Amino acid sequence: MPEFRKDPVVERWVIVAAERAKRPQDKPERVYTADPGICPFCAGHESMTPPPVLVLADSDARPGRAIWSVRVVPNKYPALVDQQVAAPKTDGLYISTNGAGMHEVVIESPKHVVNMAALGERDIELVFHAYRRRLLQWRGDPRWRYALLYKNQGAEAGATLAHGHSQITALPMVPKEPLEEIESGKKYFASAGRCVYCAIAQRESEIGRRIVLENDRFIVFCPFASRVAGETWILPKRHSSCFESASKADFLALARSLRETLIRLNRCFNEPPFNYFLHNNPLKEPENDYYHWHLEILPRLHEFAGFELGSGCYMNPLPPEDAAPLLRGVVP
Amino acid sequence: MPEFRKDPVVERWVIVAAERAKRPQDKPERVYTADPGICPFCAGHESMTPPPVLVLADSDARPGRAIWSVRVVPNKYPALVDQQVAAPKTDGLYISTNGAGMHEVVIESPKHVVNMAALGERDIELVFHAYRRRLLQWRGDPRWRYALLYKNQGAEAGATLAHGHSQITALPMVPKEPLEEIESGKKYFASAGRCVYCAIAQRESEIGRRIVLENDRFIVFCPFASRVAGETWILPKRHSSCFESASKADFLALARSLRETLIRLNRCFNEPPFNYFLHNNPLKEPENDYYHWHLEILPRLHEFAGFELGSGCYMNPLPPEDAAPLLRGVVP
Repeated sequence: MPEFRKDPVVERWVIVAAERAKRPQDKPERVYTADPGICPFCAGHESMTPPPVLVLADSDARPGRAIWSVRVVPNKYPALVDQQVAAPKTDGLYISTNGAGMHEVVIESPKHVVNMAALGERDIELVFHAYRRRLLQWRGDPRWRYALLYKNQGAEAGATLAHGHSQITALPMVPKEPLEEIESGKKYFASAGRCVYCAIAQRESEIGRRIVLENDRFIVFCPFASRVAGETWILPKRHSSCFESASKADFLALARSLRETLIRLNRCFNEPPFNYFLHNNPLKEPENDYYHWHLEILPRLHEFAGFELGSGCYMNPLPPEDAAPLLRGVVP
Repeated sequence: MPEFRKDPVVERWVIVAAERAKRPQDKPERVYTADPGICPFCAGHESMTPPPVLVLADSDARPGRAIWSVRVVPNKYPALVDQQVAAPKTDGLYISTNGAGMHEVVIESPKHVVNMAALGERDIELVFHAYRRRLLQWRGDPRWRYALLYKNQGAEAGATLAHGHSQITALPMVPKEPLEEIESGKKYFASAGRCVYCAIAQRESEIGRRIVLENDRFIVFCPFASRVAGETWILPKRHSSCFESASKADFLALARSLRETLIRLNRCFNEPPFNYFLHNNPLKEPENDYYHWHLEILPRLHEFAGFELGSGCYMNPLPPEDAAPLLRGVVP
């Protein structure tokens, strides 16, 4: 059974999940050419996954089309198990607890689409609606404090199956990265009287150099301290802490913004492997003034190496002021 | 010119170094077969690197052998520049400063050895002596507060040249990862009256299950909260904060411990790409009771993906209690 373990020195949780070692390991060269005939995520192969927890059908569904557009299924090789959260065990030095959590896969299309940018706006919008539906479900479950939603596209970004999918996890704690953002957001608000992400959106809009695209609802930019070449964030312009409180119109605009961003990244960086993840308010916390949800997209053009792992700092060879004009320059 | 930039929300420094984009990019399949005839690190090609800052000759040197054993040269594509440290600039939201630092390459052998385990004990010992000599040099320079020493072996671990080398950086600040260890070490000492790493070494020695090897001077083990499959730490048994205060006998034992560990990792995990890094006391701080230097080795058998990047937590499919017996079971 999986287990959460805390490093005895630093604030680092590890999920030790031996079951995960059994999952399919596509080689990098196989991921994009994997035979759709044996793909467990393709329409017609529904029996190859655990039964779905959510199925969204396109309202335009008609005879001849697949009967679903987005399916959410439990991860067949979960890092976490749907069980009660046990009290942490400690021997005075080491701390561990059972690996309670949810680990689900969002299959983004019934078709074997391996590059998310090839989906339509409406398809991507449905993916966001699926995220929202699961978040709302988990908000009602007293066990879960945080949901981390993320996507790995390409083997170099950690994907083990080519068919477009994202992963959603419910965790019994707020993990380190969003926790640091939230704590820092509170401090900034206490001193400056406003949300730090609102301040960033305004500053980026004024400066303009790092903007990739901007519309009524979202600002898409390469952040000032980009960790990697082509790092891009999508931030709602109207302050909001909770992704799940976004409106239908917001999700459509978000889908349009993400799709256009991915097309631009594909053109500039030759269809790079990438990760994205949603940084959102903790599940049990209400809308507030100091935290602001956003999507972070990290192309994986170079490896994280000893410097990054050993220091927690990053070396980025492409300044965001150079990346943004490249991305803006693409004519989709 | 490179620049340090601080993320406006979290404590994350990024070195934006456009010059690094020009460095040679070996493809994974090329790294281990790179033609020694064009390798800038091989004996006879000394003019292909900047002039060395340190050359160590094996005391056994005799006619017919290369005239050097370890060469330390400035990185030709440095992430940091040897210059004065400027005061940080801020516009109230974003903070940056000039990329002042040292970035050097330790060429570990005159021969085109691509796997460190193929070096002799004496060769590896000389690498540690080279690290020490540079650390002592930097301790005398008022600009540098921390030295991060690390190795990337294999393209998947971030190496761009196959010939065995490590990298050493002098930084004007103590970076996040060692800083967290040091702060936590101070807290543990204040409450428990002893060094947390001494407590770990004692506990691991008592439990035994996660030990890879142990000798008079070092304990080598898979840590309780291993981030990745086969993660292994080398810790001196006698409390010491500063790597550079180790004795000649310590360095020989360390070289022997590292070499044997790498041979075991190679056998168990099929010559995995890996990173190691030295976590050491800051350059200007004396020996103390609360911090304990050590070497962390991370095999790179699977990619860090959206979950790790988005949460700061790790998913590890191989419990250290399973990894350690595999590593112990190898007959070198």
